[in-house]
Amino acid sequence: MRIGIVGLGLIGGSLAAALSEQGHELWGVSRHAETIATACAKGWLQHGSTDLSALIPTELVFVCAPIPQTLSLVQRLTAVLGIDTVITDVASVKGAITAPATAIWPRFVGGHPMAGDTATGLAAARADLFRGRPYVLTPIATTDPLALERVQVAIEGLSVSLHTMSPDNHDATVAWISHLPVVVSAALVASVGTIDSPELAQAAATLASSGFRDTSRVGAGNPALGVAMAEFNTAALLDSLHHYRHALDQLIHQIEQADWPALETQLHRNRQTRRRFCGEQTGQQ
Amino acid sequence: MRIGIVGLGLIGGSLAAALSEQGHELWGVSRHAETIATACAKGWLQHGSTDLSALIPTELVFVCAPIPQTLSLVQRLTAVLGIDTVITDVASVKGAITAPATAIWPRFVGGHPMAGDTATGLAAARADLFRGRPYVLTPIATTDPLALERVQVAIEGLSVSLHTMSPDNHDATVAWISHLPVVVSAALVASVGTIDSPELAQAAATLASSGFRDTSRVGAGNPALGVAMAEFNTAALLDSLHHYRHALDQLIHQIEQADWPALETQLHRNRQTRRRFCGEQTGQQ
Repeated sequence: MRIGIVGLGLIGGSLAAALSEQGHELWGVSRHAETIATACAKGWLQHGSTDLSALIPTELVFVCAPIPQTLSLVQRLTAVLGIDTVITDVASVKGAITAPATAIWPRFVGGHPMAGDTATGLAAARADLFRGRPYVLTPIATTDPLALERVQVAIEGLSVSLHTMSPDNHDATVAWISHLPVVVSAALVASVGTIDSPELAQAAATLASSGFRDTSRVGAGNPALGVAMAEFNTAALLDSLHHYRHALDQLIHQIEQADWPALETQLHRNRQTRRRFCGEQTGQQ
Repeated sequence: MRIGIVGLGLIGGSLAAALSEQGHELWGVSRHAETIATACAKGWLQHGSTDLSALIPTELVFVCAPIPQTLSLVQRLTAVLGIDTVITDVASVKGAITAPATAIWPRFVGGHPMAGDTATGLAAARADLFRGRPYVLTPIATTDPLALERVQVAIEGLSVSLHTMSPDNHDATVAWISHLPVVVSAALVASVGTIDSPELAQAAATLASSGFRDTSRVGAGNPALGVAMAEFNTAALLDSLHHYRHALDQLIHQIEQADWPALETQLHRNRQTRRRFCGEQTGQQ
């Protein structure tokens, strides 16, 4: 298949690497000529350009841009692509993108490859980033079935775990397991940042270990991505946050009331819940 | 040195392994004869017994018991040990233990080796568990300086990072970086456990990845340890929880008000804070 990638960061670069490995012919577009040259040198692109019009020969284009730029890139591509070309995206919110993008371009299919890394950019890209990871497609009533099929064919070669759900179900799901943890963790980092005593702050920084490290990780990630998650998935995120706040208040109440049996019951229940979500034995530092 | 270990779980077993490797002569006491036999077979103990009175020849005894049993074990040891023997403990709270234990036994020194593992028990013990990790001693005004020195000499051979602070400072510090993350994470797991829709719960379990996994880990740990942390460090934990709840409410407010500049400012500040506490580049899944 003749495949185009717009945006050669971690996700776009890894898609180029994985898809070219599958024998597809790859066109890449980046604002930076240097990035194009690097990706071509790695053999991940056969054609590179800083100009979207270079994508005219492609049958399928992945828009791999930050959430706030995704729709406007789809809009700009409509002026360039042949009418048969399918466009898909990789944004981690789908309600704000799938329907409007489909209205702009009838052969649009919303997508979300759920893989990542703490490192970003083309330098961190790798062909196996998506292997074994979930890849969600979010077709709606007006999605062209042939367009959906073309995206499925392209990504099935990546050994992903392919899921199909509505944009709203996708957004509600990622609110719980991806966006809520970011805010929960961000509040932890923010609160630790408010420690008044310099001596206490110093001791805390010295003694912080794996428990703090793991719980604080996603709350100190890319600020622009954190804001975009909140801005483009506000309703579902706030719903999960209100549930979270209620659960937190219950735990605080149990501790204030020294209701240790209730606290222990909840912590036992948590082991079951997490096993259901993470499929493993769990432990405490 | 002739060293005794009471309780041969992850911490006690690892202390026996590390201290015997340093050439000390080790006495071990466990309620389970089988555990004694295993530790002796590994060469971690030269003497083992299910009876505390076996510790009579020792110069230094580590009480490696769950928090709620630590004081009563010190009490039982007073009936057994010679007056020169030093007792230390490994409990992760110190205010509730150091002063009362010192009142019972003048040669008591409060300690907290800050190492752990998701696995527990003697099977998970290893000689290098403490290497490079913080080991906090919490002497008070009535601590015998020679007793403190004896503990320091024994643990300095373990290549730990040795810190000395008051029991209250220790408890305030671990409340922030160890006990608060447990409750924050426990509330996340508890709230995810309240998802009503079976379809949404199933999708969330299917799509949960490293962000959820890391943020939920310590909230699904050993329930008895979680309760003991809360029960024996209540005031400091509640103080940090109230700060946390305030930080959470601020983030919720920013999202409700769509105040994205304020949210982005906080997330940028978080990167700095976490770098100060974890000393590394941070990233988002």
